[in-house]
Amino acid sequence: MGKTSDLPIARRSYPDADAIGESDSVLKSRRDFLRKSMAMAGGAAVAGGAARTASAAPLAVAPSSQEVGRPIEASAYGMPSKYEAHVMRRRTDVLKNRQNWSDWSMTPLQHQPGIITPNGLVFERHHAGTPDIDPQTHRLVIHGMVRQPLQFTMEDLVRYPSVSRFHFHECSGNGLTDWLKPASTTVQQTHGLLSGMLWTGVPASTLLEEAGIDPRGKWVLFEGADSSAHTRSVPIEKVLDDALIVYAMNGEALRPENGYPVRVVIPGWEGNTSVKWLRRIKVADAPWHFRSETARYTDPMPGGKWRQFSMVMECKSVITSPSGGQQLKGPGFHEVRGLAWSGVGKIRAVDVSFDGGRNWREAMLEEPVMDKCLTRFKIGWNWNGAPAVLMSRAVDSTGYVQPSVQDMQKARAIVGFVQHHNAIQPWAVNAKGEVRNAIGQA
Amino acid sequence: MGKTSDLPIARRSYPDADAIGESDSVLKSRRDFLRKSMAMAGGAAVAGGAARTASAAPLAVAPSSQEVGRPIEASAYGMPSKYEAHVMRRRTDVLKNRQNWSDWSMTPLQHQPGIITPNGLVFERHHAGTPDIDPQTHRLVIHGMVRQPLQFTMEDLVRYPSVSRFHFHECSGNGLTDWLKPASTTVQQTHGLLSGMLWTGVPASTLLEEAGIDPRGKWVLFEGADSSAHTRSVPIEKVLDDALIVYAMNGEALRPENGYPVRVVIPGWEGNTSVKWLRRIKVADAPWHFRSETARYTDPMPGGKWRQFSMVMECKSVITSPSGGQQLKGPGFHEVRGLAWSGVGKIRAVDVSFDGGRNWREAMLEEPVMDKCLTRFKIGWNWNGAPAVLMSRAVDSTGYVQPSVQDMQKARAIVGFVQHHNAIQPWAVNAKGEVRNAIGQA
Repeated sequence: MGKTSDLPIARRSYPDADAIGESDSVLKSRRDFLRKSMAMAGGAAVAGGAARTASAAPLAVAPSSQEVGRPIEASAYGMPSKYEAHVMRRRTDVLKNRQNWSDWSMTPLQHQPGIITPNGLVFERHHAGTPDIDPQTHRLVIHGMVRQPLQFTMEDLVRYPSVSRFHFHECSGNGLTDWLKPASTTVQQTHGLLSGMLWTGVPASTLLEEAGIDPRGKWVLFEGADSSAHTRSVPIEKVLDDALIVYAMNGEALRPENGYPVRVVIPGWEGNTSVKWLRRIKVADAPWHFRSETARYTDPMPGGKWRQFSMVMECKSVITSPSGGQQLKGPGFHEVRGLAWSGVGKIRAVDVSFDGGRNWREAMLEEPVMDKCLTRFKIGWNWNGAPAVLMSRAVDSTGYVQPSVQDMQKARAIVGFVQHHNAIQPWAVNAKGEVRNAIGQA
Repeated sequence: MGKTSDLPIARRSYPDADAIGESDSVLKSRRDFLRKSMAMAGGAAVAGGAARTASAAPLAVAPSSQEVGRPIEASAYGMPSKYEAHVMRRRTDVLKNRQNWSDWSMTPLQHQPGIITPNGLVFERHHAGTPDIDPQTHRLVIHGMVRQPLQFTMEDLVRYPSVSRFHFHECSGNGLTDWLKPASTTVQQTHGLLSGMLWTGVPASTLLEEAGIDPRGKWVLFEGADSSAHTRSVPIEKVLDDALIVYAMNGEALRPENGYPVRVVIPGWEGNTSVKWLRRIKVADAPWHFRSETARYTDPMPGGKWRQFSMVMECKSVITSPSGGQQLKGPGFHEVRGLAWSGVGKIRAVDVSFDGGRNWREAMLEEPVMDKCLTRFKIGWNWNGAPAVLMSRAVDSTGYVQPSVQDMQKARAIVGFVQHHNAIQPWAVNAKGEVRNAIGQA
């Protein structure tokens, strides 16, 4: 085997940040740039490399090559490496529950590449713990303003014409601890009530049309089989448009904490409208005004009024790397990576600022960009070692631009546990490369 | 709560098979058809339903609603429901290994909806078990015909500009037990060395171009850090085109059995070229002719010759539901579902036959249809209760049509453990609805 170098990679041959991250079309020019940079910097790089190579021994045989590995029996259902045990769902450090029945755990977005969240890391939010439901005995009923009430077993549901769709899923309370000043450290804590999934199930319209909707039917009730009997009212137009009765997530049955054996998914709307452990669908001519629609999941407005049924999750984005609690390993090239999503359509663009919002550059969006789905954005950054404030700002296919907190304060009252925080998230980087939450400070 | 019926759904209001499954554009007409079917069948259905409704009690409160559920602490890294314990990777029943170091386990495709395989169910194939590799000490080296040999830590690799891409992954030996007559029962056994993933990593071209490729460099060696030191030669054109140096799969770090902490992925080519536990990349002017390229991973041809370096996985499809070992629950509507993929491009179409290949109808392809990626197809079928033979036949974007075994026998010698079995898979349904493997018999 030939001798090898152990050159560090920083500041050696990365492209200039201006040359990359603008769009997919620059990938080729990025390569050209790399090549030209190499050619220009060749003397120094090769000189430095040669010195290191001369002193470097050939790569030693790895310990893992010297003993036979783990056989297959040990991994019938696979688990992550023991070296990744830090990548896990976590409860928040900020709001400590005295009990843990109505609770949540958050997705480690700082460790998630791409736009799919592994099922073992999909966030949880439930009002009375995760029920244990036997799919053999579980039943789903459709009744109310329908021509013919219907009851379904799980076996019935799986026989219907199925669809699989990629969508984001976000709790309406995502970020409620961090509106006006930093309370949380990591992006898992500030934005981790968010996951990306491939849902599989039956269009709700198929089942409702089979039951036969009474023309007076305008709202649809979804009720869960957990002990909180979590229940929401959803307008029938949305239900018929794209709601799914879902039994699988990311290629396998729903996980217990995510609704096993069946839930509704209301794409792009508050996570809590996608009622889990679904047992009952009822059609009526008006919403029900459940506790979930009066005491919870409402928005305080200026003047002391409260907004009800504000169920759309509006356009939002966040930089996941670098993000709070991380530390940059020194000046030079860094790829800034993040997620963007909108409850009403596709992401059209994401702008990134490195100076607290004074200047913005357009990031690259990774294909496929799908409707009401997480979209990954990336942009190159040559950090000069000086303090910086990073922000992302998403624009969706309706032209809606993600607002600042200051913008939102004009339209809403930020008091108490406020839902629907889709404002721009700033991360401050100090001269040591330490990244901290700068919400309300930039 | 209103009273409900417990009507069975079979043969009640499913659309006629001719009206659905042709393309996305028929979704609306499918709904219209459902509505019209309802209207026409209304008298009988409502009469039957009314009788059942009258005798049915309201849906009882579920046991799961009567006790508080499992709290969050129990599921920091989530696992499937205990009711899904049968959904797991399995070793084959057909080829029993005397030892289990060079072994494989197969993905339960009959239970996988959509186009993503959960990481816990991604197939395994290794030559000396799964090594235990500490990412802190692991190194990747590039050397050979390059201007500057390079060595990378995992931290180095993750800093490079990253990409995430959806691709299928298939072992070249997938199906080798079932060429001329049925040996296996289930689609997990016949086709389960196949999974669908979102890979994240660095384009191999980025790293090779940083090292600086000598113009004489035409082939690239990839060597693993397992104790078999599995090694392959890949043409540099393919490597520069779309090979990825991958550290994450489906939104989290690679699993140990799938190459943790880093592997190469050669999209659309034999799985074994995507060397796991990657430690060394070498550039040279010719292939190496490793044991993996002479004793294994070659194709017998008519006349006693063997084909080497036939690394492309050609266009293929399989019906996953209904499939071997399943039983249809009676005549009436069934959605036939399957997967199609091609190592050279996108799936253009999938045809399905219900009569052993005499007549074919075009199935619906589910979006997004992506390059070198699993594509889900679906088509409605009104089973009349008579014996039937189901088959699928995929066509890719180059116009290549998936062959029959008979077609393949003209071009290849089917003797011993033959790789690259991409022929049409027939499933026979008998009058009881039992589905069995009919390879070589239809």
